[in-house]
Amino acid sequence: MFEADGFWRDLIAFTWNFKTLETRAAIEAMLHATLNATRPTGWQLLGDASLKDGVTEAWIRFETAAGSGRGHLRLRRDRCWTLLTTLHSLTGFEEKTGANDSREMGVEHGAFKNRLSWLERKQRDEAALGYTHQPFCLIVGGGQGGLGLAARLKRLDVPAIVIDKHPRPGDAWRKRYRSLCLHDPVWYDHMPYIPFPDHWPVFSPKDKLGDWLEMYARVMELDYWASTECDAARYDEHGEHWEITVSRAGERLRLRPKHLVLATGMSGVPNIPAIPGADSFSGVLCHSSEHAGGEAYVGERCVVIGSNNSAHDICADLWEWDADVTMIQRSPSIVVRSEALMKFAWGPLYSEAAVKAGISTEIADMRVASVPFKLMPEWQRPVYEAIRQHDARLYEGLENAGFQFHFGEDGSGIHTAYLRRGSGYYIDVGASQLIIDGEIKLESGCEVERINERSLSLSNGKEIPADLIVLATGYGSMNGWAARLISQEVADKVGKCWGLGSGTRHDPGPWEGELRNMWKPTRQAGLWFHGGNLMQSRHYSRYLALQLKARMEKIQTPVYGMAPVHHMV
Amino acid sequence: MFEADGFWRDLIAFTWNFKTLETRAAIEAMLHATLNATRPTGWQLLGDASLKDGVTEAWIRFETAAGSGRGHLRLRRDRCWTLLTTLHSLTGFEEKTGANDSREMGVEHGAFKNRLSWLERKQRDEAALGYTHQPFCLIVGGGQGGLGLAARLKRLDVPAIVIDKHPRPGDAWRKRYRSLCLHDPVWYDHMPYIPFPDHWPVFSPKDKLGDWLEMYARVMELDYWASTECDAARYDEHGEHWEITVSRAGERLRLRPKHLVLATGMSGVPNIPAIPGADSFSGVLCHSSEHAGGEAYVGERCVVIGSNNSAHDICADLWEWDADVTMIQRSPSIVVRSEALMKFAWGPLYSEAAVKAGISTEIADMRVASVPFKLMPEWQRPVYEAIRQHDARLYEGLENAGFQFHFGEDGSGIHTAYLRRGSGYYIDVGASQLIIDGEIKLESGCEVERINERSLSLSNGKEIPADLIVLATGYGSMNGWAARLISQEVADKVGKCWGLGSGTRHDPGPWEGELRNMWKPTRQAGLWFHGGNLMQSRHYSRYLALQLKARMEKIQTPVYGMAPVHHMV
Repeated sequence: MFEADGFWRDLIAFTWNFKTLETRAAIEAMLHATLNATRPTGWQLLGDASLKDGVTEAWIRFETAAGSGRGHLRLRRDRCWTLLTTLHSLTGFEEKTGANDSREMGVEHGAFKNRLSWLERKQRDEAALGYTHQPFCLIVGGGQGGLGLAARLKRLDVPAIVIDKHPRPGDAWRKRYRSLCLHDPVWYDHMPYIPFPDHWPVFSPKDKLGDWLEMYARVMELDYWASTECDAARYDEHGEHWEITVSRAGERLRLRPKHLVLATGMSGVPNIPAIPGADSFSGVLCHSSEHAGGEAYVGERCVVIGSNNSAHDICADLWEWDADVTMIQRSPSIVVRSEALMKFAWGPLYSEAAVKAGISTEIADMRVASVPFKLMPEWQRPVYEAIRQHDARLYEGLENAGFQFHFGEDGSGIHTAYLRRGSGYYIDVGASQLIIDGEIKLESGCEVERINERSLSLSNGKEIPADLIVLATGYGSMNGWAARLISQEVADKVGKCWGLGSGTRHDPGPWEGELRNMWKPTRQAGLWFHGGNLMQSRHYSRYLALQLKARMEKIQTPVYGMAPVHHMV
Repeated sequence: MFEADGFWRDLIAFTWNFKTLETRAAIEAMLHATLNATRPTGWQLLGDASLKDGVTEAWIRFETAAGSGRGHLRLRRDRCWTLLTTLHSLTGFEEKTGANDSREMGVEHGAFKNRLSWLERKQRDEAALGYTHQPFCLIVGGGQGGLGLAARLKRLDVPAIVIDKHPRPGDAWRKRYRSLCLHDPVWYDHMPYIPFPDHWPVFSPKDKLGDWLEMYARVMELDYWASTECDAARYDEHGEHWEITVSRAGERLRLRPKHLVLATGMSGVPNIPAIPGADSFSGVLCHSSEHAGGEAYVGERCVVIGSNNSAHDICADLWEWDADVTMIQRSPSIVVRSEALMKFAWGPLYSEAAVKAGISTEIADMRVASVPFKLMPEWQRPVYEAIRQHDARLYEGLENAGFQFHFGEDGSGIHTAYLRRGSGYYIDVGASQLIIDGEIKLESGCEVERINERSLSLSNGKEIPADLIVLATGYGSMNGWAARLISQEVADKVGKCWGLGSGTRHDPGPWEGELRNMWKPTRQAGLWFHGGNLMQSRHYSRYLALQLKARMEKIQTPVYGMAPVHHMV
């Protein structure tokens, strides 16, 4: 049925894992191991299949022992080239929703003594959860990832608490530099269940997104503990639960959830390079995540180390505040204009045109998921070749300005770079022209050798005066959070998070073919990693929520093909 | 083209008024007066027409000099029986929306000195509006009506402030008695632009709805002034604007909007009957709108005067708190079980089945609007005949208990009663059984003759002891608010609000065929009334917003057929 080099990507329907089987032999081995437990039946086409360039595509549904599945299929010459299978819901534990006529009534008709109102029930439950009643799951981090997952868990009746150190949901966005807007367009960014209304701006400003997330936590009735930090977490292997200490607005509490989800940002812990002399600097030295904006630096000499998204955004913001700005580029970056991405990359799936063509958010997400990571570079390369031609003037200007750019090591662009290393690119919203015009000064192809009292010494021999140094030097792997909150031992046991193992820069092999440790079981029982952009958080939170619900309901979840651990962080 | 007795209902497309023309002659007169200014063109069928029981139905669109219209048509034997025409948008002033590719970008790509972020712009605009920059429109009342209208005005770039006396949006719901849930189901209740997510309970509990409205004001970026009361309003006929004094959290301010919308609740000012001896009562005596719930009355003797929705809800709530409860019924009420309404009345348009049949909220709203009020009783009667049979046991029980019920004076049920007088019925969610079982004691067909120190004397000779008396005696006309906030003179100039002029109880004639003074021009320049249930607020706010926008943009809005004023309040 499959081509010899065919692909089967399964998201927890057969493997209770995120797994791409590459080659017919790997597929056979997987089926041999999982068929008995999965018992797939009722395969059906959903809608009509389509044929284009010799490839037949079709949407499918099927049932397994545990639930209902959805999938996507590509056939070439009567053989299966790619297959995606996903678990869509758990039989007997479907979400209550209008679509399956299972909304709650909201009120119990009739008259009852000692009836509690909705508000009283809510207040009672909130007072109990975490105190007299332990959550099944603790989610650390209340950004879009933690909130979307909590909403799905709420709908599945899985008791979960989200903790976040900030006073209000959305603050993680609000406190970033003032000019920040999403670089992904609105069609890509919907939260689960409540899409943005259709006048929402294409690129959400950070504070507006913050308000949306705050509203979301409220109306989805999430158990959100604001101003709460996780102090320490330890897994009790014997009792099969976590022992977690949190500080909630000053109060010290012990929680004992069965599962712990780190939704602390897929970017992980800020990466602070050790630069000789940094201690001697008398100006302000901070990581990009701590930089609040250019307002305080009017007329000052500012140096930004790095050349990816944050570095560009911060340079442009400082320039807008009349600072004297220098960017220090240490390695090449991918640069693509936002408009070009919209036109060539997002357009077919996430755009107004796609909406009008009937491509719902769910269909778009499933189609993205249907592309095996191995094939992605090959499929993405033509997009970037088209962009290169379309914006030839931009690239000529950058070249003349000495900016080192490329389209990824293998020309496959931003999406693969994002999956491989979570960075390495700038989605141009204006700063490239400032570099071309010399408004942002550029030192390229050099390293910072040392920081002096009020300047930096570069490997090209120059000394750059500086009142502010911003380290736009990226982030470590998410298991840095495991090291910080749990232990280095557990962080090592789990290994690197994110990255496919492509063997490109910052994505060391061996090839795994899925994002390491994300949304799927890890080598530490009860520990999960959740994160990524709004699209990934939206789509993959579905499978993480189903995995947690299955475990709560004691459904058998035999995990097939746990990936080996790789420590290279 | 029209039958001799045909109907044309126009919502501001031809008449800049809400107007139902009844008979061919009336239609001809209207066309004669309006065609020159309206210049309708481009009539098109939208989708396929349908034929059922000899009636062809079709959806249409058309263009006028001012904008784009939508409508609905019923034909019998090649002649038009009913026609609905509505103005859908103003040409050149369409809402920015994804559907017409006019979303804002959210960010201006490029680099600009002195750029303001979204938050800074918002804060600047909020600080200016009402202080250095006058709103075009002031909306008094921040319930679902005021909020939905403000959202539409925001989308149309009409500067508007909503004021509400409560500290938070949604408080008008929150502060009502604890057991209150909407009596209308969720499909009927969506706000404009952001529908409830599809797990929302069928009957929204009041506090949950409060949270939704609070979220709505925030994410729709409404200019909502909480804790603000309107002290006085006076129309400056010369300057053609209002002079309005408001108290905003203690600060006294003068506003000068061109238009004033009273969205103070279509129920108007509480109706407090003058009952002899009321001053001598030593217990608690309050109107239903002030009654906070039964919690404080455990074991006490409670008397509720009235037999409509609030009276029943309050009686049941008191009974649940173990109070001793007596209902005093002064006149017959319509009683229909909530489940029966869902099945027989809402189902075809507002239900999960309707959603699945492709009947969007907008289609359902337009179909409701397409029924001429004159025909409604005839079309509604069979619904209530079916309900009477379906719930025969309930009605038998009520009869045996001495409860006086009917199905409206002409058997046309709840919807017409609502349109005629805004009350007169109980949507049964449990209290009827308590009456049948004698758990709520009933005194029926009598009046309260006098209130004594701790009891009531009834016209049937009985004396009922009472620690609490709740006056569930309804509300006056909305122009009571005009009297209170503006002047009795303006209230009289405008006349009665709501009601069709059916000549039935509490809806004195003459027949107007539209709700008096609602959402359409009144005899007081610059004064508008907005209100009704969530469906009406949602749908009719569209036309009110377009009327205001047209006036702001100085589009010609010749009003055809202003209704005569009727003082009977």
